[in-house]
Amino acid sequence: MRDRGIRYGGDYNPEQWPEEVWSEDVTLMVEAGVNLVTVGVFAWGELQGGPRQELQSGWMDRVLSLLHSAGVGVDLATATASPPPWLSAVHPEILPVSATGVRLSPGGRQHYCPSSPAYRDAAIDLVRRMARRYGDHAALELWHIGNEYGCHVPACYCDVSASAFRRWLRERYADIDELNRAWGTTFWSQRYRSFDEILPPRAAPTFPNPTQRLDFARFSNDELLACYHAEKSVLRELTPDVPVTTNLMGLFRPVDGWAWGRQMDLVSVDRYPDPADPDAHVGAALVADLTRSLGKGRPWYLTEQAPGAVNWRRVNAAKSRGQFRSWSLQAVARGADAVLQFQWRASAAGAEKFHSAMVPHAGTDTHLWREVVTLGADLRRLAPVAGQPVPAEVAIALDWESWWALELESHPSAEVRQVDLLMEMYRPIYEAGIVADLTHPGADLSRYRLVVLPALYSVSDEIAANVDAYVRDGGVAVVTYFSGIVDTDDRIRLGGYPAPWQEMLGLSVEEFAPLPSGTSDPLTGPLASRTSHALRWEERVRLHGAEALLTIGGGPLEGGAAVTVHDYSRGTAYYLATSPDPVTTARVVAHAISRAQVASAASVPAGVEAVRRGEHLFLINHADGERRVDIGESARADLLTGSMHSGAVTLGQGDAVVLGPPQAPVR
Amino acid sequence: MRDRGIRYGGDYNPEQWPEEVWSEDVTLMVEAGVNLVTVGVFAWGELQGGPRQELQSGWMDRVLSLLHSAGVGVDLATATASPPPWLSAVHPEILPVSATGVRLSPGGRQHYCPSSPAYRDAAIDLVRRMARRYGDHAALELWHIGNEYGCHVPACYCDVSASAFRRWLRERYADIDELNRAWGTTFWSQRYRSFDEILPPRAAPTFPNPTQRLDFARFSNDELLACYHAEKSVLRELTPDVPVTTNLMGLFRPVDGWAWGRQMDLVSVDRYPDPADPDAHVGAALVADLTRSLGKGRPWYLTEQAPGAVNWRRVNAAKSRGQFRSWSLQAVARGADAVLQFQWRASAAGAEKFHSAMVPHAGTDTHLWREVVTLGADLRRLAPVAGQPVPAEVAIALDWESWWALELESHPSAEVRQVDLLMEMYRPIYEAGIVADLTHPGADLSRYRLVVLPALYSVSDEIAANVDAYVRDGGVAVVTYFSGIVDTDDRIRLGGYPAPWQEMLGLSVEEFAPLPSGTSDPLTGPLASRTSHALRWEERVRLHGAEALLTIGGGPLEGGAAVTVHDYSRGTAYYLATSPDPVTTARVVAHAISRAQVASAASVPAGVEAVRRGEHLFLINHADGERRVDIGESARADLLTGSMHSGAVTLGQGDAVVLGPPQAPVR
Amino acid sequence: MRDRGIRYGGDYNPEQWPEEVWSEDVTLMVEAGVNLVTVGVFAWGELQGGPRQELQSGWMDRVLSLLHSAGVGVDLATATASPPPWLSAVHPEILPVSATGVRLSPGGRQHYCPSSPAYRDAAIDLVRRMARRYGDHAALELWHIGNEYGCHVPACYCDVSASAFRRWLRERYADIDELNRAWGTTFWSQRYRSFDEILPPRAAPTFPNPTQRLDFARFSNDELLACYHAEKSVLRELTPDVPVTTNLMGLFRPVDGWAWGRQMDLVSVDRYPDPADPDAHVGAALVADLTRSLGKGRPWYLTEQAPGAVNWRRVNAAKSRGQFRSWSLQAVARGADAVLQFQWRASAAGAEKFHSAMVPHAGTDTHLWREVVTLGADLRRLAPVAGQPVPAEVAIALDWESWWALELESHPSAEVRQVDLLMEMYRPIYEAGIVADLTHPGADLSRYRLVVLPALYSVSDEIAANVDAYVRDGGVAVVTYFSGIVDTDDRIRLGGYPAPWQEMLGLSVEEFAPLPSGTSDPLTGPLASRTSHALRWEERVRLHGAEALLTIGGGPLEGGAAVTVHDYSRGTAYYLATSPDPVTTARVVAHAISRAQVASAASVPAGVEAVRRGEHLFLINHADGERRVDIGESARADLLTGSMHSGAVTLGQGDAVVLGPPQAPVR
Repeated sequence: MRDRGIRYGGDYNPEQWPEEVWSEDVTLMVEAGVNLVTVGVFAWGELQGGPRQELQSGWMDRVLSLLHSAGVGVDLATATASPPPWLSAVHPEILPVSATGVRLSPGGRQHYCPSSPAYRDAAIDLVRRMARRYGDHAALELWHIGNEYGCHVPACYCDVSASAFRRWLRERYADIDELNRAWGTTFWSQRYRSFDEILPPRAAPTFPNPTQRLDFARFSNDELLACYHAEKSVLRELTPDVPVTTNLMGLFRPVDGWAWGRQMDLVSVDRYPDPADPDAHVGAALVADLTRSLGKGRPWYLTEQAPGAVNWRRVNAAKSRGQFRSWSLQAVARGADAVLQFQWRASAAGAEKFHSAMVPHAGTDTHLWREVVTLGADLRRLAPVAGQPVPAEVAIALDWESWWALELESHPSAEVRQVDLLMEMYRPIYEAGIVADLTHPGADLSRYRLVVLPALYSVSDEIAANVDAYVRDGGVAVVTYFSGIVDTDDRIRLGGYPAPWQEMLGLSVEEFAPLPSGTSDPLTGPLASRTSHALRWEERVRLHGAEALLTIGGGPLEGGAAVTVHDYSRGTAYYLATSPDPVTTARVVAHAISRAQVASAASVPAGVEAVRRGEHLFLINHADGERRVDIGESARADLLTGSMHSGAVTLGQGDAVVLGPPQAPVR
Repeated sequence: MRDRGIRYGGDYNPEQWPEEVWSEDVTLMVEAGVNLVTVGVFAWGELQGGPRQELQSGWMDRVLSLLHSAGVGVDLATATASPPPWLSAVHPEILPVSATGVRLSPGGRQHYCPSSPAYRDAAIDLVRRMARRYGDHAALELWHIGNEYGCHVPACYCDVSASAFRRWLRERYADIDELNRAWGTTFWSQRYRSFDEILPPRAAPTFPNPTQRLDFARFSNDELLACYHAEKSVLRELTPDVPVTTNLMGLFRPVDGWAWGRQMDLVSVDRYPDPADPDAHVGAALVADLTRSLGKGRPWYLTEQAPGAVNWRRVNAAKSRGQFRSWSLQAVARGADAVLQFQWRASAAGAEKFHSAMVPHAGTDTHLWREVVTLGADLRRLAPVAGQPVPAEVAIALDWESWWALELESHPSAEVRQVDLLMEMYRPIYEAGIVADLTHPGADLSRYRLVVLPALYSVSDEIAANVDAYVRDGGVAVVTYFSGIVDTDDRIRLGGYPAPWQEMLGLSVEEFAPLPSGTSDPLTGPLASRTSHALRWEERVRLHGAEALLTIGGGPLEGGAAVTVHDYSRGTAYYLATSPDPVTTARVVAHAISRAQVASAASVPAGVEAVRRGEHLFLINHADGERRVDIGESARADLLTGSMHSGAVTLGQGDAVVLGPPQAPVR
Repeated sequence: MRDRGIRYGGDYNPEQWPEEVWSEDVTLMVEAGVNLVTVGVFAWGELQGGPRQELQSGWMDRVLSLLHSAGVGVDLATATASPPPWLSAVHPEILPVSATGVRLSPGGRQHYCPSSPAYRDAAIDLVRRMARRYGDHAALELWHIGNEYGCHVPACYCDVSASAFRRWLRERYADIDELNRAWGTTFWSQRYRSFDEILPPRAAPTFPNPTQRLDFARFSNDELLACYHAEKSVLRELTPDVPVTTNLMGLFRPVDGWAWGRQMDLVSVDRYPDPADPDAHVGAALVADLTRSLGKGRPWYLTEQAPGAVNWRRVNAAKSRGQFRSWSLQAVARGADAVLQFQWRASAAGAEKFHSAMVPHAGTDTHLWREVVTLGADLRRLAPVAGQPVPAEVAIALDWESWWALELESHPSAEVRQVDLLMEMYRPIYEAGIVADLTHPGADLSRYRLVVLPALYSVSDEIAANVDAYVRDGGVAVVTYFSGIVDTDDRIRLGGYPAPWQEMLGLSVEEFAPLPSGTSDPLTGPLASRTSHALRWEERVRLHGAEALLTIGGGPLEGGAAVTVHDYSRGTAYYLATSPDPVTTARVVAHAISRAQVASAASVPAGVEAVRRGEHLFLINHADGERRVDIGESARADLLTGSMHSGAVTLGQGDAVVLGPPQAPVR
């Protein structure tokens, strides 16, 4: 890939427009500083007219030439995400089937069974033709495989999928008795005599077998990944030097980011925070940190965001007060080397015509177009940060396999959701001006000072030992309730919860006591304020070494431990037996941060985000109104404006500075 | 049709009762002043015992004779709304199929696929036999075809319907490329190579193609109308002099009232306001005005209402405090020449046994029966208004095709609903004592002083020009947001919204900014009060000629125009870029009424309805308590009581007067 | 059955555990005082490997021996509740089908069509083998047939069920015209020409025929009962001396408790009150009283409850503050001779692993285990009450057939629910320290001083006469609105409501006037307080002999009767034409109790339950905090502690005493 600083652009779908619009497009791209566009994501129907037919490539040839002549690089899609009507007309069996047996129709997109041989054959045929035709095109920077894998159809329950699931289970277990053991089929009379008896977890009278559901989630992820991998193999064979990506969807349960990240030369993500949510920037930061972490810290691409409103929420708020710019700069701050939009020119027809775009329906004499041009200029000025790393001393553990198991039915509380607990722990770290990585809990944790494990329900023996060793060797861990409960077969680790970490935490848990929503109990103890209270969950804890930082101050478990700390060998382990209110959670996290001696990027008032990337400090004001940040006495240059700052920087609403390293102090 | 003043009666289903009850029925009808009953709506099963069998007509013969001998006319149903079990047993393919593939069972009613040849053949066979048997019966006043077309099953997704849909599309588009253009199939890879590839918009992974859905709505309406038309053709052939109707359902999305109204000799409607809704009379008035307008101002029939409670709501409130009478008089005031009830005698069995009726379960020594008798006497006294017109200087535009498009998914806000916006604009006109017609926006508008276009999302070139010409020629138009957005293929009209009317309105809109429910922004400006605020929607407006009457007073769009007025050639065009709160909306509408110089029927306090029909002025008190209305010094006779009134009339709760033209002033 | 006082134990599923755990199980059972366990409920898959195969009985042999050797009796399941995968693999037609046509999959439990010959044959084959193998085992105390019949799959809509339904209808009606009459098929054109045309009430466009639905509810109950009966017949034949039971589910609509109770040697119930509901003990008492009544007052078994939390609610609260013990003692107080838990040892895998058990995941050094041991000791001390009756002078009528009809769609208000009205009437009786039986309304009522009929919507002529005769002969009856409305075909009893009881009540009702939820009207009159108000329902009542105790004090029916009393021959009949607020309802009930001269077991403060069983008085404190009860001056011994009490007894939160008969007064 040629280095041209930060990439800027978006999905470009010229097939929706008459050819005379294309030259205006390229002229406007140059005006806006666009240097990368994604082409062909939904173009299968325009590229091929029937099974194994030749590409109808003339129009695409002309598009790529035009872009190249204007210096705009291309992220070329394999175009396989939405099969054209002729494919499902010839092969109706490619259409996916829901758990209740409804075969879904074409007319939308991504209407394919991931296990369908007919779909995969047709997709590979198309990819091969694309790679042969465009693999050495001068405009080609990157291959973009499929689109948002798992979106709409994360799993298919058809008979073809049932066969594939049985094959997958045979491979995983070899012996049906091993499956019976793993699935606990002695319960509810579910013993299988042969793999042939097994079905997908279709609609059943009541909770289906949890391990069957867990394995089906694993299988479904694997089948999607196999679709991706089949395309990637063709591209590797024909264009070994062109990197590949696919646009992930962030905190998206069906697709295991760690497994996918390993298969991508460049990790990318589609990110659509809700402008109507005043805290949207916090979740957006988490998605950015996750995406960077999935790529092991390498720069990543923001492949899609909306310049303004989307069109798929119930009510779709416009972006206001500079959100388009500030959220874009946030992505760069947290490691993005590309800021791409869906899409370049707003569609006149179809199901996304009310999704905002860089060129709106109203044309270029608009507020939105001016913002697009402004951001292009900003990103050009940020070229020095391209490729730079975003260092982190804190990590939050996330394991998709555990997430799948965590959110199965028939649990103590349906309100223990992975993303909620992740956010509860992420927010106080974010607000402290500290960058966190996400980490698989089985990865090397030693490079972090602090590791947080929110609701890590399912752990393998290896993961259990990995966390224990991390603390023993001097790390600081924060573990929440409902962690370490089961093994990877979703079988309880017996002997009090969390069985593998009782020594590390200095306590054991006898019994769970979830709180109905809308109820709480007071919290007391050294870290409590007068308004501290416990939410969502309590449990009967017995301490054997841990010290209570917070204690339940009412209700049936009054006097029991709520939050504890335990010195364990050379490290420290915290335990949250409840979800304290946000302010109290922040005190707990601050205690752990202090114990771990983690430093902030900057001391910032509420609403201002501080992130260090390479040598540069990003300060972004997400608050409703002006904010002042003290940056110290040394002068620092703002990359965006060239101005020098020292002392206090004043940031207007939605505004940002990107400060270089301190220079001579100003006297 | 013989003229007998106002018709009064209801659905009469004698087949539910032993024959000895029939003579009591007729005696009671005479007591109540009943002069028209609808017979046979659900009698197919009693009239025919198998395919193409002779009518079992003896019982019906006796019923019609009995009615005729008592002077009760008959609105005779074609009895085709609910196929008997033998038909679906022989032809299971007539049963309709849902979008998720569920074939619906008999046991309810209206369980037929509108495109089914087997259903249509059987229906036509029945109608032919009915017309031959009863076409010259002396009691026959009117044919009643089917029942509430589209109720429960507005569309069918079965394979028979799929074929019919393809035929319909071939006829509409002739060429598959023309369909591809209209549907925008370059988006999401949906290009069809042949009509054979097309399916109905069955359940899909995500939003199906919007134009596919819009065309399916058109197709489904056309198929229902074809069912109606097939029956009507038989009747026209065999009984050319007997008028036909079918009972429409008012503001019912699936059925295009304009297309149906054109096919009816007499437009009629079923109207069921909720007695628990304190504003039900306003919506009821709108339905009355709509029905009158669908018949081009001719008198219409209220074919169904409940004397008391219905039974299909979750909680079914009784009618109280004279609602049965006051709502009936309202219908007459707004042009009805018939007040018919569902049903004459309350059923003892079946799914509607708890629906109130003129003869209740408890018999005739009841409050309800006394109300029935009273109303019969009232209606007899209102004979002079029968056949009289209801003049209107204001019209509100409603276009079913636009409605279908407006409420598709994937729009800026799912809370922009046709009926809500219609009601928001209708209410202040109603409360000002002004009668409004409904109009198709492509109709001749020149006879109105004021035309309101609420959320007229989709407009053809002809409609766009028609409205523009109306204002240019001196009309006053009030256009709300999300009007004029797309053409009839649901393709965006590019170049800023609303593209066809920017010149007329003196402004253009760059970007939509829907408000989440529960949020609002203040409104300021000449028409604002201190509590004025914007709800549901805002947008980024640029004025080029229009003047702001209201301005957004907070939030991201602070300072932008919210409501504007623009003098355009000889006329005036108002634009609402938001939904102001009701009080402020009333101020805006009053401004337009004043500009259009539209006069009220009378100046009435809140809760009193004033309508002029012919020479008579109806004053109806819907308020909780007594109200006084000033009618001027000239004496006027009340048709209901014969009393003379002048000065102030006092109306008790639920009471009404129907005043004749002013006579000599009282000194 | 050997008499060993109160049985204590639970479901024991040793097949889920390696054999080495079994001996620890038995040791712990002895420690806890366990003397009865239910074995094999979900063991089919472990007991049989294919159609008609020999039992794999070795493991079960060893389990039963081990239990017997420790003196633990066995309630042996027939193991037919959850068919193993091999059965549905060979016979997929046993899988049940929903009303929308979804065939449910195995993977959960109870996935069988109750009408399936293949299922019934396989079940009978298994039962026969079980009875032959274990019928004379020394440990066997009781047969446990199936499990929670009707749970998850109360009805099946498949084609096999359709055939069975037609057979059932032929038997009920013999003649299709009799069915047409009963179902009222003249309405909506539903006349059947032959039984062959009939289908189950599958998904239809709108409300299906109510009597079709009612008959389908009867049929579905009968089919489930036929499954039970088929197993029972085998057991009776092979083991005539071993009693049989099946675990009912209390106030569970699909299964007619009276019909089932007649088929059971010993009635048993699974009872799972929600610990998060502060009033859960009231509903639990009602379920206990119902279960005792279903067995005609004989001692009953509590076959399942949770020692702590369950896992199938959205949020599953732990039991706290002694609820496990106090609710267990309540069951014994109200007639239970067994307190069994689901389950003995908490599962490590499967869909119920988070359901609490007597041996928790955390083992025996736990709060919960200590509660289990304590309760075992308590129950041993309560041996003297085993077998003793619980006398009642009050009865509440409940008729499943009426319940099915009551909760059909298309009624005046969907908020008139059987259990809600039952609870509204039960609560004030419970709180007055009075035990109520439940009774079928057609049973002999003469042994009760007071009979309450809450929403007894449907009554046969016999039931109508039975209630009338009861009052005539001196009884006191309390009837609520929406009682006596229809006959057993769900056909209206014409002539004013409630037609059969107008003379008895001294009034008639003309019209219903349900209140939307959230609305109310004030109540006035002799029994009203200043805050009395009417909820959910009002009606237009005409008194002809009755006296109003409460009158509607506002709204459209102001001045109408709300609650009345009527002396009728030698008895008295009360009528509630509304649901008064709870405090006012208690006044009405107190009025009736006083009139009926029913005595309390003891005068207790709010939150304390008082029940007399045999010679013993149970006092149980469910309140949040300590309560004092005055027991009179005579000394009485507490069975639980041996202590003597007189004067005031102080009960700690969750505590109880079981007082013997009064001895010498203490001076």
